[in-house]
Amino acid sequence: MKFGITLSVAALCAGMASPALAQFQKPEDAIKYRKAALSVMGTHFSRIGAMANGRVPFDAKVAAENAVVVETLSKLPFSAFGPGTDKGDTRALPEIWREQAEFRQAAEKMQAEVSKLAAATRTGSLENVKATFGSAAQSCKACHDNYRKD
Amino acid sequence: MKFGITLSVAALCAGMASPALAQFQKPEDAIKYRKAALSVMGTHFSRIGAMANGRVPFDAKVAAENAVVVETLSKLPFSAFGPGTDKGDTRALPEIWREQAEFRQAAEKMQAEVSKLAAATRTGSLENVKATFGSAAQSCKACHDNYRKD
Repeated sequence: MKFGITLSVAALCAGMASPALAQFQKPEDAIKYRKAALSVMGTHFSRIGAMANGRVPFDAKVAAENAVVVETLSKLPFSAFGPGTDKGDTRALPEIWREQAEFRQAAEKMQAEVSKLAAATRTGSLENVKATFGSAAQSCKACHDNYRKD
Repeated sequence: MKFGITLSVAALCAGMASPALAQFQKPEDAIKYRKAALSVMGTHFSRIGAMANGRVPFDAKVAAENAVVVETLSKLPFSAFGPGTDKGDTRALPEIWREQAEFRQAAEKMQAEVSKLAAATRTGSLENVKATFGSAAQSCKACHDNYRKD
């Protein structure tokens, strides 16, 4: 029975991350990669946030440039949560591997919200950016709350 | 005289990195950011290299996807070499701040080579990718050789 459960978890993980896992030689490479991608994404997301929240003047071109980076990076980290990458220099919670479907759904939600935000920046309207930034930020926070150690 | 030199170096740095510097609250934030961006860029560049060098089968779509990431990231790190970011958790050599023009030129060379590589991946031809990968790799290496501690 235990063997059966172990196998099915392995199969789930493989379904999610198999092609990606082959791309990292060691689990610590995957961990370093996903942290780096999330960190750069966060930096650029915050720059849009500073404009959305009025802390810096709105510059449509700069907002759109930052959004391109955020959107590109939003697709990267999730290939790097493969089997064996739950231990080491990471704040990732075990729920990521226990709740694969939910985790993937949360990632896809974030990617969709970030794409909406990017589209909003391309309209050049601060109102549109403000209207989409909150949901995008909420989708980041939801994953951090549920899947990241404090 | 010493004061004059210090001022002119500061002016050079400001010309290169002033708007960017304002975007990092602390020097260590800039250092973390540029290392993360270079690291993610390197991961995706290596994946194109594995195809160019025949270590993994060529997949035009995958090559092009990796190249988009590399091209987007190639523009990011250089805003984060502002004044005060020469010390700390970094292998950056002092030459970066002593030879601003040369460093910037090397960065622009890399960005141009990476764009050529990205264009090559979009043709779907492995021969084109092979023809551009070497120069792009050389432009990465040139900067590492000259501006990064071993």
